[in-house]
Amino acid sequence: MAAWAIGIDLGGTNIKTAVIDEAEGILFEDVQPTDTGSGPDGVVRQLALAADNLCQRAAETLDTGLFAGIGVGAPGAVDTRRGTLSYPPNLPGWERYFLRERLESRLQEAHGIRSTVLIENDANAAAYGEAIFGGGSDFSDFMLVTLGTGVGGGIILDRKLYRGPYGTAGEIGFMIIDFEGSSVHAGVRGTIESLIGKKQIVNMACSSDSLRELSPRLTELCSYDRSRLSPRHLEQAAREGDAVAIQLWQRVGDILGIGLANVTALMDIRKFVIGGGIAAAGELIFKPALMQLHRSTLPSMHEGLEIVPARLGNKAGIYGAAALCFSFAQSKQGDA
Amino acid sequence: MAAWAIGIDLGGTNIKTAVIDEAEGILFEDVQPTDTGSGPDGVVRQLALAADNLCQRAAETLDTGLFAGIGVGAPGAVDTRRGTLSYPPNLPGWERYFLRERLESRLQEAHGIRSTVLIENDANAAAYGEAIFGGGSDFSDFMLVTLGTGVGGGIILDRKLYRGPYGTAGEIGFMIIDFEGSSVHAGVRGTIESLIGKKQIVNMACSSDSLRELSPRLTELCSYDRSRLSPRHLEQAAREGDAVAIQLWQRVGDILGIGLANVTALMDIRKFVIGGGIAAAGELIFKPALMQLHRSTLPSMHEGLEIVPARLGNKAGIYGAAALCFSFAQSKQGDA
Repeated sequence: MAAWAIGIDLGGTNIKTAVIDEAEGILFEDVQPTDTGSGPDGVVRQLALAADNLCQRAAETLDTGLFAGIGVGAPGAVDTRRGTLSYPPNLPGWERYFLRERLESRLQEAHGIRSTVLIENDANAAAYGEAIFGGGSDFSDFMLVTLGTGVGGGIILDRKLYRGPYGTAGEIGFMIIDFEGSSVHAGVRGTIESLIGKKQIVNMACSSDSLRELSPRLTELCSYDRSRLSPRHLEQAAREGDAVAIQLWQRVGDILGIGLANVTALMDIRKFVIGGGIAAAGELIFKPALMQLHRSTLPSMHEGLEIVPARLGNKAGIYGAAALCFSFAQSKQGDA
Repeated sequence: MAAWAIGIDLGGTNIKTAVIDEAEGILFEDVQPTDTGSGPDGVVRQLALAADNLCQRAAETLDTGLFAGIGVGAPGAVDTRRGTLSYPPNLPGWERYFLRERLESRLQEAHGIRSTVLIENDANAAAYGEAIFGGGSDFSDFMLVTLGTGVGGGIILDRKLYRGPYGTAGEIGFMIIDFEGSSVHAGVRGTIESLIGKKQIVNMACSSDSLRELSPRLTELCSYDRSRLSPRHLEQAAREGDAVAIQLWQRVGDILGIGLANVTALMDIRKFVIGGGIAAAGELIFKPALMQLHRSTLPSMHEGLEIVPARLGNKAGIYGAAALCFSFAQSKQGDA
């Protein structure tokens, strides 16, 4: 009998929720704007209500199955043991908040739901989602790298999430590969995020020497307004053969490949699953990245090197949050 | 009753061997030049004879204690499960060699010794030695970084060796931190080893702009022959207050700190044990490295950051090789 769980992806803009069946995947899902103005307690009320709605829909539809719990992926520093969320970006006023405890209380007091709640960092949740349901399910050890506004990641070792001793592992965006360079992000020079975060990719198109003159096709795609240029335009232009855009993605891939080479050298991880909005450029990035990964590692590290696309898109977080509940329920059964 | 084991450090120049007591540390030790000319089988005969000699000395002296086995740390790619050593640098003609099997056979056939033999990569063995007997014994998670001719490392997670899925983890020397720079090592641009390997440190003193003129004290220390300049001279000059030498170690520390920051960002490791010949410069390197480590990481990663010296010097390998035998013997007892 398959278990089901509720997966929640708490973001600064939206809250995504879903009922996820261990075998079937997403059964129902919902999305709503995050009521950031009402502070952490307000958001907890929102989360509890959303979970209650999904539980009711599940009760009407599913007549069997073990309810494994409610998993929440959230941005910022998560202490999974204490169930706290600290200083989540884009959620002002949270500081250090006992999210697990508050959500468990609210569910029980206002909705009569007694449920295990698990809290996880959103990038880790996404990595675990890809590990169980997505692009990493063939790999026992891999790193998910998400390319978007920021560059983030999560690490799976031996099919388990690697959180690190303080719970902050996987921050590949803060890896320094150009310490004498000019790009800076969050006060640190030459990090991967400072080089290939979304904004930097667009800036690269507008400012690098060879690109000072946008190509006619790019100029057209952004409606003759350079400030509107987006990664989507750069992707489309490259697919149409625009040399300037192809060269730009080549550079993004090169830089990504160097970052991955560092992961291989340090952790001996050789499988990479790439997600996030920017990863829609697909082979335009992956192909140069894989070549660079080979060039930047020793031959003794080449066996098994692979870069594959993530498969769950922006649903990796809700999948992963639910998958953590399945894993937790199994470990409890193992203990009993 | 404490166990004892034989620890062997097989290098391209010397073979170090020791009888190590689990509680007392080194009881006897020996060192001899590696007979590289006689090929792998010749070196195995040498290893077996050295082990036999130590076993006899141990038998004459120790009247109790469990013999836990023979551990060998070796350079190059080690497959611990298969017991193979592949392409060890400075050991020509080895290719892929079944070192464990050959040494076990030789011990039994020529010396009548039936013993478990464990093979481990030398940097990993050193890290495990520091974890059990040395500078890392207070830390459950840390990285040993060795600064010498090359830059290497080994990773301890939860008091166990982290080898990675293919057994090559910990190669911090091949981490790229200056991908647009001019330094190259082993075909890869901007790696840490290309920047602060022993040769590069000396070159830095001779070629960097501010150092084009060696200071009078450095000129004196190297007997007016720039080609004789060694890290030891640079260390001595810095301790005497030579500004040029102090600035050089500052730069070595900065570069090390950037590498460590990448380890913290990726793996969330916050304790670093620094060994190898170059690490004799101690606080001249560690102090700027720790400052750089703070500058190059997010405030949320600062808790617990620490850099300490390794304590076992060039004996970390033999300690670690023996410690792996103790751990293996315990796990067997656990199974029984």
